[in-house]
Amino acid sequence: MLIALFPGDGIGPEIVAQAVRVLDALAIDGLTYEDGLVGGAAYKAVGHPLPPETLDLAKRADAILFGAVGDPDCDALERRLRPEQAILGLRKELGLFSNLRPAKVFPELADESALRPEVASAIDLLIVRETNGDVYFGEKGFRTTADGLREGYDVMSYNEAEVRRIAHAGFQAARARRGKLCSVDKANVLETSQLWRDVVIAVSADYPDVALSHMYVDNAAMQLVRNPGQFDVIVTGNLFGDILSDQASMCVGSIGMLASATLNGSGQGLYEPIHGSAPDIAGTGKANPLATILSAAMMLRYSLNLPEQADRIEAAVAKALADGARSPDLGGTMSTVEMGDAVLAVL
Amino acid sequence: MLIALFPGDGIGPEIVAQAVRVLDALAIDGLTYEDGLVGGAAYKAVGHPLPPETLDLAKRADAILFGAVGDPDCDALERRLRPEQAILGLRKELGLFSNLRPAKVFPELADESALRPEVASAIDLLIVRETNGDVYFGEKGFRTTADGLREGYDVMSYNEAEVRRIAHAGFQAARARRGKLCSVDKANVLETSQLWRDVVIAVSADYPDVALSHMYVDNAAMQLVRNPGQFDVIVTGNLFGDILSDQASMCVGSIGMLASATLNGSGQGLYEPIHGSAPDIAGTGKANPLATILSAAMMLRYSLNLPEQADRIEAAVAKALADGARSPDLGGTMSTVEMGDAVLAVL
Ligand SMILES: CC(C)[C@H](C(=O)O)[C@@H](O)C(=O)O
Ligand SMILES: CC(C)[C@H](C(=O)O)[C@@H](O)C(=O)O
Repeated sequence: MLIALFPGDGIGPEIVAQAVRVLDALAIDGLTYEDGLVGGAAYKAVGHPLPPETLDLAKRADAILFGAVGDPDCDALERRLRPEQAILGLRKELGLFSNLRPAKVFPELADESALRPEVASAIDLLIVRETNGDVYFGEKGFRTTADGLREGYDVMSYNEAEVRRIAHAGFQAARARRGKLCSVDKANVLETSQLWRDVVIAVSADYPDVALSHMYVDNAAMQLVRNPGQFDVIVTGNLFGDILSDQASMCVGSIGMLASATLNGSGQGLYEPIHGSAPDIAGTGKANPLATILSAAMMLRYSLNLPEQADRIEAAVAKALADGARSPDLGGTMSTVEMGDAVLAVL
Repeated sequence: MLIALFPGDGIGPEIVAQAVRVLDALAIDGLTYEDGLVGGAAYKAVGHPLPPETLDLAKRADAILFGAVGDPDCDALERRLRPEQAILGLRKELGLFSNLRPAKVFPELADESALRPEVASAIDLLIVRETNGDVYFGEKGFRTTADGLREGYDVMSYNEAEVRRIAHAGFQAARARRGKLCSVDKANVLETSQLWRDVVIAVSADYPDVALSHMYVDNAAMQLVRNPGQFDVIVTGNLFGDILSDQASMCVGSIGMLASATLNGSGQGLYEPIHGSAPDIAGTGKANPLATILSAAMMLRYSLNLPEQADRIEAAVAKALADGARSPDLGGTMSTVEMGDAVLAVL
């Protein structure tokens, strides 16, 4: 089983290194790694954020363990050369359409949230975000209006097949959890959302055991503050999912703890912490590697079919926290390597 | 000075009635009212959510005091007949492009928020949302893909003139407050946002006294949870503004207290509470009229140039709250009329 390691920018290399130590400790038979350049690091080395060799490796791999991309040195580059294009390109080229972002509060960390502890501690939700369509990948550009004005435009769209496959992903996730699916759209304004809603309702016929509800995105943004504990699984499009999943993560409080997976239809997946490249603390040993370690656990579960090993990692992280392991983002002083040590000590 | 009263659906008539009582108590010279039908109420009476007589009255009026639209009986109607079209139609037909949503915690109500009191009590921000463009008003519809699939689409766009006028509104608002403007976009993905950002930067040359920053919308959704006190004025497009302004309102906690104004370039404005029509409590006397009363105060300030009278209303609401006036949404038992009485008693 081949894992592509794409550490990327900023703190990426440091946190991926700790996840690899943890994977090594499990001594999984037949696991091999290959490194690839992505993001600003790839641009600086070879002139493109997603070089052909990286893409080729990604396609050959069973799974991708990803650090983070984002580099202030690259802010002024034209869009197609910016670090973020690496992640967008991988999602599109590998057909990684189903982004899973669990948000759950570790009991020890309920105080990290800006939400009241009783509100925050009830959070246990999963956002299923579509990541191959929507306004992200439609026709876009600049044009001149009839009045001679410069105009920017981006076409938002979803077709029935795109909605159907992410709807199935949402219903299946809900079935494996508490059986509640909330589909978020803006059907009172957008035809894209109207189609989305119609297809989700059609797909729901296959899942009589799942309770489906619909919510407008503005209301969802309110409800995630007011009472995030009401949600089990949320399924939504690329743009709304971008906003709501980051909001939900921050409701949890400790974004240094949150993992994600983005899957295609053949079991391949890209696994990454939800936090960014944090260039301000890169190289200082302050980065919390737990989100990346938990992403590696998701990788074992979803792409490598090793659920027991995934459970072992997750239990080890919970135990390390319970034993008091705290990096600076969690109010402690432990370094990136010491946090890795703490997890290894439990394993 | 002619005020168009559009009570609309659900609790709309009850709350607008209290705002009118408050306006009457100020005995403002030359203030006249005319009633108009909007929303589900208009559809049921005359077959359209925004009948021509209503639109005509809106155009003649100096300002519109609006209750709420939204009626579950109308959910199955085709889009152009649904209650929400009244508000979208008024914004577009009157050129009401600048939606102002202040969010501030009343000290007595800091406990209403799901955020920790110390986080919530720091909120004092204004969202300036563009409401005439974006994906709301672009070409939209259904089409068939090359593979014969049904697809929904909506074109997002902004031209430089649209961005320029809302940018000026944002800078001017910031200048009148704490001098900080945060422009929210998704320029790492959207060309519409790239144009937005370029124009906002160009306009900033006229406002050297305002500190401008830029934030991606996903990060803004996080920051509004983590530390909403960091914001003074946020300027953003129609769709992102819809989501973020509702999120910010809920961070305040008591959405029954939050007013809004939507202005065009000639001083006309539509004033409405940010909460909806709440059909579940319509007619029960449980609705909190304070957001509508505060919207009437915004009307006096922005459209009728009566800032002292606006101050009087706002001070009376604050005093009524300090004296213990509480409707059910604020944990009390006072009825809609009693809440109106409490404000009138102070005036
Ligand atoms: C970097 C950016 C293009 C990306 C997105 O918007 O999808 C990021 O915010 C994410 O959520 O993975
Ligand atoms: C009712 C709806 C069309 C409207 C909007 O999306 O603009 C509402 O949510 C608002 O914010 O005023």
